[in-house]
Amino acid sequence: MYKASVITVSDRAASGAYEDKSGPAVRKLLEEAGYEVVRVLIVPDEKNKIINALLFECEQGVHLIITTGGTGFAPRDITPEATKSIIEKECPGIAEYMRQKSMEITPRGMLSRGIAGIREKSLIVNLPGSPKGATENLGFILPHLGHGLDMLNGKKE
Amino acid sequence: MYKASVITVSDRAASGAYEDKSGPAVRKLLEEAGYEVVRVLIVPDEKNKIINALLFECEQGVHLIITTGGTGFAPRDITPEATKSIIEKECPGIAEYMRQKSMEITPRGMLSRGIAGIREKSLIVNLPGSPKGATENLGFILPHLGHGLDMLNGKKE
Amino acid sequence: MYKASVITVSDRAASGAYEDKSGPAVRKLLEEAGYEVVRVLIVPDEKNKIINALLFECEQGVHLIITTGGTGFAPRDITPEATKSIIEKECPGIAEYMRQKSMEITPRGMLSRGIAGIREKSLIVNLPGSPKGATENLGFILPHLGHGLDMLNGKKE
Repeated sequence: MYKASVITVSDRAASGAYEDKSGPAVRKLLEEAGYEVVRVLIVPDEKNKIINALLFECEQGVHLIITTGGTGFAPRDITPEATKSIIEKECPGIAEYMRQKSMEITPRGMLSRGIAGIREKSLIVNLPGSPKGATENLGFILPHLGHGLDMLNGKKE
Repeated sequence: MYKASVITVSDRAASGAYEDKSGPAVRKLLEEAGYEVVRVLIVPDEKNKIINALLFECEQGVHLIITTGGTGFAPRDITPEATKSIIEKECPGIAEYMRQKSMEITPRGMLSRGIAGIREKSLIVNLPGSPKGATENLGFILPHLGHGLDMLNGKKE
Repeated sequence: MYKASVITVSDRAASGAYEDKSGPAVRKLLEEAGYEVVRVLIVPDEKNKIINALLFECEQGVHLIITTGGTGFAPRDITPEATKSIIEKECPGIAEYMRQKSMEITPRGMLSRGIAGIREKSLIVNLPGSPKGATENLGFILPHLGHGLDMLNGKKE
């Protein structure tokens, strides 16, 4: 069973001004897909705090690290840049597939700047911030990530 | 009303050997969509000149900076590299969507290397150089850019 | 007639533990499309060896350099990173188109991390490692690469 963590990136959720609905919705989807969700946390839209949260999850050996939020055009949105700065390998197809499927629903999906990549044995995927966008995007890729995690963890070739 | 600038990148148009038809065609599309086009300029395929033109438009507070030309495989084509060197955040979905729609018309659309990204409050988008390619690609994304510019300028969240 | 080289990237094929079927299959497709295949070689999944092989082909003036293998999620898969480190210009549309067409066949195509790019007069394209994946992906793009190579070599504008 693979371990997963969910990081909600949101100034308002981190300050308590706003209830985080995306994190729990993502957790539910992951658990239904058979992942052991070891942590759901909230960090503000600050590059260093996002990086620290990602690095901590990697060091804990979490296999799948999902972020939600901070992928748009707002000046504080910085999740993809934080992610890019710590991954060792980019997985462009995961982000392309999510956007392609999103854009079939609404061309506004083109405005999501999320990326995906690998650090050591952890796969990191950026989802949009809204509960609908986050679960919709995760739903597109979730059935296919297990094969990638198996390769990453030496269970398949 | 958002301000826009159009930068035609072309050695031949810059030298006067060739009339720039793409710049005016892009300007027309932008004006029809409600943008105030503050400048249409022509620069040669030289990385530093493209960078200087982009930086000037950013400093002037232009919201949407559209380039046309220099995105192909010719040795002098360097617009995406110039753009990449000065953006702070990449917006991969905009370029992906343009290519996806282009490739439905012709798979040769795969040869366009354009990117899109944000610097401060400016969104920069690379279009192909031909009038047909430039207006076709801009047409795909133009109805959806306003939402991104609203986020970038703090008018929506 | 354009010159092409095929580089199979695989620890097992390089050690002789495994017969390389992808390299010859790619060679056949290229020859049928009218390329002169000047070399088919095998290198292990080691970044420096892949880089050296790519640089050698570029220095020899090979127009189209195709790699197969090392684009997945396995810890040793490093072909895209080796490629990225030596290209001067990225050609994202080629990789996007291959993945888009692959993902129509199977969404697992999202796990291929291949890229494409230009160094001097050479176009480098990463294909997946399996014979089926490699030939399928090359088949998607091969009819359209000639136009790019013509631009790169100054035969068209």
